[in-house]
Amino acid sequence: MERHFDEELKNLKQKLLQMADTAQGMIGLAVKALAERKEPLASEVFTLEEKVNRTEIEIEEEVLRLLAVRQPAARDLRLLTAILKINNDLERVADQAVNISEIAILLMKEPPLKPLIDIPKMAVLAQKMIKNSLDAFVRHDAGLANEVCLDDDDVDRINDQIFRELLTYMMEDPKSITRAVDLILVSRNLERVADHATNISEDVIFIEEGKNIKHHLQERSGAGSK
Amino acid sequence: MERHFDEELKNLKQKLLQMADTAQGMIGLAVKALAERKEPLASEVFTLEEKVNRTEIEIEEEVLRLLAVRQPAARDLRLLTAILKINNDLERVADQAVNISEIAILLMKEPPLKPLIDIPKMAVLAQKMIKNSLDAFVRHDAGLANEVCLDDDDVDRINDQIFRELLTYMMEDPKSITRAVDLILVSRNLERVADHATNISEDVIFIEEGKNIKHHLQERSGAGSK
Repeated sequence: MERHFDEELKNLKQKLLQMADTAQGMIGLAVKALAERKEPLASEVFTLEEKVNRTEIEIEEEVLRLLAVRQPAARDLRLLTAILKINNDLERVADQAVNISEIAILLMKEPPLKPLIDIPKMAVLAQKMIKNSLDAFVRHDAGLANEVCLDDDDVDRINDQIFRELLTYMMEDPKSITRAVDLILVSRNLERVADHATNISEDVIFIEEGKNIKHHLQERSGAGSK
Repeated sequence: MERHFDEELKNLKQKLLQMADTAQGMIGLAVKALAERKEPLASEVFTLEEKVNRTEIEIEEEVLRLLAVRQPAARDLRLLTAILKINNDLERVADQAVNISEIAILLMKEPPLKPLIDIPKMAVLAQKMIKNSLDAFVRHDAGLANEVCLDDDDVDRINDQIFRELLTYMMEDPKSITRAVDLILVSRNLERVADHATNISEDVIFIEEGKNIKHHLQERSGAGSK
C-alpha cells in the first residue's frame, strides 16, 4: 500500500514535469513566432494550450483522489498541496505563451519595429527558471530553488531595460507606439512567467525547509514601470 | 467531532471572506490614490499588503492542519483545496493593488494626463466581481459565480477602450507617453483582478456542480492589446 502510494506520487510528479516542459516550450515557441514572424509557431502554441489545460484538470483530479483515498499526513500532504499550486502556476505560464502568441500574430501584420534581442534573452532566462524550479521540486533541492528566486532580479532588470528602450522609440516616432506598447506587454508577460517560477521555488523551499519564505525573501517584482 | 470540523470550516471561510474584503478594499484605495493623487492612500495599501500576506500564510497552515487532522473526504476535500486556491488568488489581488499604488506614486510626480473616469469604473466592477465570487463561494451559489464570469467580458471591453483612448493621447503628444503607458499598466492590473475573480468563480461552479468548466466556459481574456 505504502509502496503503491509512492508509485502514484512518482507518476504525478512525472506528469507535472512533462507539463512544465510543455509550458516552457510554449514560451519559446511564442517568442520565436514573434521574433521570426512565423504564424505557424503561434498556432502550435494555441494547440498546445489545449493539451496543458487537459493535463491541469487531470493532475487536479488525481491529487484530489490521492488526498481522499490515501489520506496522507505531514510531508506527503504538503507535497500534494504543492503539486496543486505548481499545477496552477504552470497552466498560467501556458496562458502567458498564448498572450504572447496573440500579440505576435498582430505584429506580423505591421512592419518590424526593431530586431528583437532582449525579449528572446528574457524568454530564455524565464524558461530556464521554470525548468530549474521544477528540477528543484523533484530533486528536493532548496539551493536550486533559491537560485531561481535570485534569477528573478535579472528578469526584472531586463524588463526595465526593454521598457526604457521602447519608450525612446515611441518618443521619436509616434507611428511606432502601438507596436512598442505590444512589445512592452510581451515583456511583462515574460516577467510574469518568471514570477510563476519564483512562486514554485518558494513552495519548494517551504517544503524542503519547512518554512514559509514567501513575502520575506524579496519584494514582489512591483510595478515594473520605472 | 463532526460538529467541531464544521465549526473549523466556518471559521476558515470567515477568515477568507475578511481577506477578500481587505484585498478588494485595497484595489479601491489604490485607484483612489491614483485618481485623486493621494499618497497616504497608497501607503495604506502597502501596510494592508503585509496583513494580507500574513493571513494567506495562516489560512494555508490551517488548511494543511485540517487536511492532516480531519482527513476529510469528497466534498469537504474539494472545499479545502478550493480554499487553498482562493487564498492564493486573493493574495495576488492584493499584489495588483500594490502594483497600482506604486504607479500612482510615480504619476503623482507628473502633471495629470487626463481626468480618470474609466479606470475607477473598471476598478468598481473588478471589486464587485471579487465580492460576488466570494459570496458565491460561501453561499454555494453557482448562478452568482456564473454572473461573475460574464462580468469579465465587460472588464475586457473597458480595458480595450482605455487602451485605445490612451494610444490616441500618445500619438498626439509624445510627452504623454510614459504616463499613458503607466495608465495602460494600471488597466491591465485591474483586468488581472477580474481574472482572479473569474478563477474563483470557476472553482465555485466546479464545487457546486461537480464539473470543471474551466477552459470551456470562455476563452481567457487574451492579449488585451487589440
